[in-house]
Amino acid sequence: MPKLPEMSGVTRRIAQARYKEWDRCDLTYIELAEGTSVAGVLTQSKCPSTEVEWCRKALLGGKARALVVNAGNANAFTGARGMEAVQRILSLASNHLDCCEEEIFVSSTGVIGEPLPKDRAEAGLNAAFMAEPCGWTEAAATIMTTDTFPKMATTRAIIGGKTIHLSGIIKGSGMIAPDMATMLGYVFTDATVDPGLLQDMLNAATAKSFNCITVDSDTSTSDTVLAFATGQHDAPALQSFDDPGADAFQAALNDLCMQLAHLVVRDGEGASKFIEIAVMGAESAESAKRIALSIANSPLVKTAIAGEDANWGRIVMAVGKAGEPADRDKLAIGFGGVTVARDGLVVPDYDEAPVAAHLKGDVIEISVDIGIGNSKATVWTCDLTHGYISINADYRS
Amino acid sequence: MPKLPEMSGVTRRIAQARYKEWDRCDLTYIELAEGTSVAGVLTQSKCPSTEVEWCRKALLGGKARALVVNAGNANAFTGARGMEAVQRILSLASNHLDCCEEEIFVSSTGVIGEPLPKDRAEAGLNAAFMAEPCGWTEAAATIMTTDTFPKMATTRAIIGGKTIHLSGIIKGSGMIAPDMATMLGYVFTDATVDPGLLQDMLNAATAKSFNCITVDSDTSTSDTVLAFATGQHDAPALQSFDDPGADAFQAALNDLCMQLAHLVVRDGEGASKFIEIAVMGAESAESAKRIALSIANSPLVKTAIAGEDANWGRIVMAVGKAGEPADRDKLAIGFGGVTVARDGLVVPDYDEAPVAAHLKGDVIEISVDIGIGNSKATVWTCDLTHGYISINADYRS
Repeated sequence: MPKLPEMSGVTRRIAQARYKEWDRCDLTYIELAEGTSVAGVLTQSKCPSTEVEWCRKALLGGKARALVVNAGNANAFTGARGMEAVQRILSLASNHLDCCEEEIFVSSTGVIGEPLPKDRAEAGLNAAFMAEPCGWTEAAATIMTTDTFPKMATTRAIIGGKTIHLSGIIKGSGMIAPDMATMLGYVFTDATVDPGLLQDMLNAATAKSFNCITVDSDTSTSDTVLAFATGQHDAPALQSFDDPGADAFQAALNDLCMQLAHLVVRDGEGASKFIEIAVMGAESAESAKRIALSIANSPLVKTAIAGEDANWGRIVMAVGKAGEPADRDKLAIGFGGVTVARDGLVVPDYDEAPVAAHLKGDVIEISVDIGIGNSKATVWTCDLTHGYISINADYRS
Repeated sequence: MPKLPEMSGVTRRIAQARYKEWDRCDLTYIELAEGTSVAGVLTQSKCPSTEVEWCRKALLGGKARALVVNAGNANAFTGARGMEAVQRILSLASNHLDCCEEEIFVSSTGVIGEPLPKDRAEAGLNAAFMAEPCGWTEAAATIMTTDTFPKMATTRAIIGGKTIHLSGIIKGSGMIAPDMATMLGYVFTDATVDPGLLQDMLNAATAKSFNCITVDSDTSTSDTVLAFATGQHDAPALQSFDDPGADAFQAALNDLCMQLAHLVVRDGEGASKFIEIAVMGAESAESAKRIALSIANSPLVKTAIAGEDANWGRIVMAVGKAGEPADRDKLAIGFGGVTVARDGLVVPDYDEAPVAAHLKGDVIEISVDIGIGNSKATVWTCDLTHGYISINADYRS
């Protein structure tokens, strides 16, 4: 993991709210400088958590003063009782900071269906107010549920000759029954960015990073990515895509989101391999992405990779089932840069040795040329192993 | 397994084509009486096998004299070389029976990407022509790949006071890497049914049976269901849905297809539980089915059932990700007839004991009431276990 530089306007504190019977910090409180812009992307689930609904509403204001993350309880599917704890957090934090409730952002992750205990939330948050500020690693560790390591990334961009920073923390993809595969990601920058522009930029970055990863095709009720721009740096403010430095900032944001997204896949449940699937020659970018996700979500493809088996027939199957325009007799498939099938059949004198060697590695590259257009997409996933079954079936709640 | 009655006009023979290095019969040749009507449903894959393409074309004629099934090689993604073996089979069988090639139906199942060896197909088919007729069980065993048992079903219907029979054989859902999860199903009846009507009836039966099962969400390149009506019974011919006996025949066909479909799920790769998922209260039947399949294909739901864990939070997740109209606060979920969650939260004083007892059984019933409409759908699946990973990853090709 990289060491994250300190960032002006972002003060982290952690506490033990004891949302579960464990002896670790599980409440993260991050205070943000006045004037911090915020943008966010949230789960498309029709059964979102109370916290997701609140964030969606609060994002309309575009301003943030604090982020509170609860680990160990997702507070999803808890109805009015779930909102009570969120309301308590909003009141406490807005009083503490003398700001509007709409400037307080809240996430929760963990078991579904149990209301977040409001007394524990209150005691935990009060303890966090009094705690000493902590490092990025401690905050990244406190938002974990069954992740196997804290996940952080950092990058920088030059705006008007000034070097601004972007740092992020994320959790996701490890779990024990009955926790959900929730992904929570938080990006911070000391740059000054208008909330509307920050939202547009986050949308663009998300489309090519978080929305291009899959571990098991199951979409969480709580997925949340929030971006905070504290404006504490003296670099010129960004108001629109046309401002000098906006392109550099977007590139850095894309890079950071990609780093964070890849960390989630690398810590995918039971994963032993990181898989990149690049589809080209599709009719449209949307079609390329749908085909790539069809491959990435196929249990047969994922188990083949786990078995280090260059089973390209299963990739044909996954292309075929995607329902997107494709022509079997124009399809080409490669592993690690070696073409194994072309024009609808295996290449002449196919030599499996270099492909088998590639499959023994930790990073597997699959390329598919649909052969009918000029559009492409890349997605990332992990293999499907006994570890996934053990995590999700063997240990009962 | 039921004992299938003999059926006039359906003569089965088997032979060893040795498509793989094994000492078993792997070619099934079923001769059908002159005048047999045929109907079929085939995979929607954009990368179908040569055999699927041939069947689609031959079905236009509506008549059948023979069915040839090759096991051990799917002959999919084999281009022109794959068609050579199919052409050889068509020539041989049509000469043997003095009929058109369009009356010969061919299926193959097994490894993808290797052309079906045409010399073995020819020798095997010639041997089958000379073989003694065999029973239904032998034919059902010969179309298997890695199925763990031969699958058959039978039923009957009364048409104009005459009892006609419907019998079927099917294979699917067991496999060893790199074989594909192909489903091949064949239904036979001695009734006289017009091909167009038979097709309409098969479509209706398929929509509620074969198209409502899933083992692992991976759609095969070779899925095929064919229905043959030999017309050898003296029951009145069926020409339209309005004919006396048509309703009884449709009901019997539905029953037979459902029996066969359930056998595939029961033999799902690594399956330890048979799961029925009933969704009601949805906005439309299509929406109900999409929600039901979202639950049935969720690895998290399937592993929870494998772990005998009444993890209803994962069902909420799967409803939410389906993208269909739903209202979290109207959702109700039950296991084995016991409601565990209602109106967006767990029922008061939830007692897990009866639910836990139900989950220890072999047949798991999940019911979901979306609470916003009057439409429903039921689908069937199996759990996701270590056995699935072992079958598809541990044993390399």
